[in-house]
Amino acid sequence: MKDLNRLFYPRTIAVVGASDKMFKWGSYIFTNLLAAGFKGEVYPVTVSKDEIYGRRAYKSLTDIPGEVDLVFNTTPAKQAMEVLRSCVAKGVKNVIMITSGFSETGAEGRRLEDEMVAFVREHGINMVGPNTMGIVNTAVSLFATGSLVKPMRGGISIVAQSGNVGNQVMEWAEQQDIGIGKFVGSGNEAVLMCEDYLDYLCDDVDTSVVLMYIEGIDNGRKFMEIARRTTMKKPVIALKAGRTDIGAKAAASHTGAMAGTHATYASALRQSGVILTMAPTEMLTLSAAFDAMPLPKGNRVGVITLGGGWGVITADECEERGLTLPPLPAHVMEKLDSMLPPFWSRGNPIDLVGQPDRALFVESLRLMASSDAFDAIIILGVIGATKFVVRVNQMVKDLGYGDDVNIDDLGKAFRKLQFEFLDYIIELMEQYDKPIYPVALVTSPEDKMLYSKNGGKYKVPVYKTPEEAVFCLAHQYEYSMYLRQRS
Amino acid sequence: MKDLNRLFYPRTIAVVGASDKMFKWGSYIFTNLLAAGFKGEVYPVTVSKDEIYGRRAYKSLTDIPGEVDLVFNTTPAKQAMEVLRSCVAKGVKNVIMITSGFSETGAEGRRLEDEMVAFVREHGINMVGPNTMGIVNTAVSLFATGSLVKPMRGGISIVAQSGNVGNQVMEWAEQQDIGIGKFVGSGNEAVLMCEDYLDYLCDDVDTSVVLMYIEGIDNGRKFMEIARRTTMKKPVIALKAGRTDIGAKAAASHTGAMAGTHATYASALRQSGVILTMAPTEMLTLSAAFDAMPLPKGNRVGVITLGGGWGVITADECEERGLTLPPLPAHVMEKLDSMLPPFWSRGNPIDLVGQPDRALFVESLRLMASSDAFDAIIILGVIGATKFVVRVNQMVKDLGYGDDVNIDDLGKAFRKLQFEFLDYIIELMEQYDKPIYPVALVTSPEDKMLYSKNGGKYKVPVYKTPEEAVFCLAHQYEYSMYLRQRS
Repeated sequence: MKDLNRLFYPRTIAVVGASDKMFKWGSYIFTNLLAAGFKGEVYPVTVSKDEIYGRRAYKSLTDIPGEVDLVFNTTPAKQAMEVLRSCVAKGVKNVIMITSGFSETGAEGRRLEDEMVAFVREHGINMVGPNTMGIVNTAVSLFATGSLVKPMRGGISIVAQSGNVGNQVMEWAEQQDIGIGKFVGSGNEAVLMCEDYLDYLCDDVDTSVVLMYIEGIDNGRKFMEIARRTTMKKPVIALKAGRTDIGAKAAASHTGAMAGTHATYASALRQSGVILTMAPTEMLTLSAAFDAMPLPKGNRVGVITLGGGWGVITADECEERGLTLPPLPAHVMEKLDSMLPPFWSRGNPIDLVGQPDRALFVESLRLMASSDAFDAIIILGVIGATKFVVRVNQMVKDLGYGDDVNIDDLGKAFRKLQFEFLDYIIELMEQYDKPIYPVALVTSPEDKMLYSKNGGKYKVPVYKTPEEAVFCLAHQYEYSMYLRQRS
Repeated sequence: MKDLNRLFYPRTIAVVGASDKMFKWGSYIFTNLLAAGFKGEVYPVTVSKDEIYGRRAYKSLTDIPGEVDLVFNTTPAKQAMEVLRSCVAKGVKNVIMITSGFSETGAEGRRLEDEMVAFVREHGINMVGPNTMGIVNTAVSLFATGSLVKPMRGGISIVAQSGNVGNQVMEWAEQQDIGIGKFVGSGNEAVLMCEDYLDYLCDDVDTSVVLMYIEGIDNGRKFMEIARRTTMKKPVIALKAGRTDIGAKAAASHTGAMAGTHATYASALRQSGVILTMAPTEMLTLSAAFDAMPLPKGNRVGVITLGGGWGVITADECEERGLTLPPLPAHVMEKLDSMLPPFWSRGNPIDLVGQPDRALFVESLRLMASSDAFDAIIILGVIGATKFVVRVNQMVKDLGYGDDVNIDDLGKAFRKLQFEFLDYIIELMEQYDKPIYPVALVTSPEDKMLYSKNGGKYKVPVYKTPEEAVFCLAHQYEYSMYLRQRS
């Protein structure tokens, strides 16, 4: 196993080719390391300036006083060997070769890359790339990618054979308050391969879930061995691209990945406990669920809805994904009989028939969450009330009435109530150690996917649709069964 | 065929049970009709007030001067017959029976409903419901539902056996600037059935696409006949819920739908040209595509991407959904050879390898759109630049530099450029009569799904992910083939 600790947790960083010219890689990396507040020293290395942003610039790595844990190289491919030689002179053990123009560009690039690989191997340097979009470690505010995304800190780590895909996933994570741990764009994988990063993340205490975007795997046996070890400790969620002939052809032209048939890959990955997804957004949504909630111990789902149609849709999704909706236990039935109109559905899904009664919503959730008959709960319509109440009052105001109501205050008060309900869901998850999936349906642009409560063990993802919630639950159930079978 | 014209285009409306007490159906309907600016007369009917919002309230329908085209009834079930009798006395031909407490609640409700049905049939009244969430016709600002949504005007009309589902779809449409024509929640379908509404919408010039949420169909033969007629004129997109045993059971308890096996339904619907979807969000996304763009004439897709990984993902999605990515024609290849670095992918997908060159983006799209080799174009990364440029500049500012740049202005200028590019896409669609699917990837909360250009024949949907774009394109291709085969 390679020691990648100082790659992800460097104390000092040098950026070769650092620049303050916008839209250059030397600026993306250097400027962003500073702006994002990396918690260590960052040295610019360039021959063209004496200082950048008031920091002394060095002509060469060897001019830098003290140790350098990590070097980013952003200079052109033909200078790469020279930079690597200065790394050796300086005793640098970790290099992120941002530079492109190697094997991905043809025979001459391939030759340059081979030369680099031989040198790097000889001197025991960990090299990321070449042709990589960079690296992130939120734990030490290390944000060094071409997209400048800055997701919040969390447990989801990403290894991507396409930096664009990985960065886009982080961008979506940032928008939705989904916390990211580490990211690495593995680029051409000339030296460090995706399985090396997986190996490292397996034992990384800051990582709770691993996401991988994979186009090709060179050493299948080694990868599967590491995957099998990792999936016993934490979920590994992968998107294997190049599933089809056309896709595989596109992958070959992109990263030079030699495909192997997808069926072979898929089956080997599944046997190693890797969870396969089809699209990057799916991958992120799923990882948020794994990161946030306890695993279900079985496939018995209780569903609560405010509208019958949504109950039917959720029931269909559950059954199609291998989950089941058992009947309501007698004590739940009795209690709901006493609270609901006589014609209520008397079954699972529980249809609250639009009763706008908060106590009923809370009580039915408590009943279901505490019952041994269910391994997981899906509850629909959790944050729609605010918008509705605002609308009802606005409509009256539009007619020139209702002057005594302050709609902003009302909206805030309702929103607060809804967050309290999300807090309550987190409490119930802790108390009964089972996942509860709230579905919003009605959302506002400012709504995030993940809510956490101060000091809470779990977080709560708020899904827009039931199919998203069921998708996550079904995969969590499968992973839970996988762990049971392996142990 | 029933004459539903005055149901959807009433000149005068009476709301029986009208109220100004918030959170009552009599208020939702009456208040919202006024607040949303319905373009006709609205009369409140109630015994408990003399006026509501300064409008004279009538004790009975028969007290209203002049004709009444449409009555909403929101009074309790036991008063329904009395209201219907006064409808007959007043000569009212269209009634929306919001009231619940009929067949969905048991034997006594069933008896009341049967009595009502016999009476309504005898007197030739069109009755929606009972137990309906209401009706919308954006063309005359008729917004009368329990959810108070007000989507913008457009060509997508919705028939829903679950008012909650239908209203939620309209809510999403409203958020994304997707235009809605008509909506009706068909409720218990005691008299008017979903096929009656479909029959009406078939010939409705304001409707370009029909969406249906269906739990059960009573008269399958009639439904399929009408569907077959409609699908030759406009796409009909349906979600048939109750696909599984558990789902069907939930549907039976919800609308009393007697399932029939789903396989039978699905096959009959498909044979009638109905496009089946699995989830309400899918249904809406798809309808927006049909409403906005020309149909593809074949399945040959050209893909343009700024990042290789996204090209691979898009290629996979295309092939998995029956689309194909033919090679680039010689003249496209030559032209791109002259514009791109020598190591570019030289194939379809065209990977612009992150070249931040606007002219290149525009020119490659023009080349592909104008080529006979492609029936549709997918172009990725269309509106990400604004966010990136803002980020690059913000990062410099965060370090205390770049004071001369006004980031707001810069953002606005870039946003304007991006809208111009969307306009250009609309122009190309008109010029070459083929659909172009822009994928945003990077989005902002304020971004909408559908953009239109003043006076433009087509609109342009901006997808967040390639899988959404491919999903829509594949269904449009299938529908296009269906039409060709039928004609």
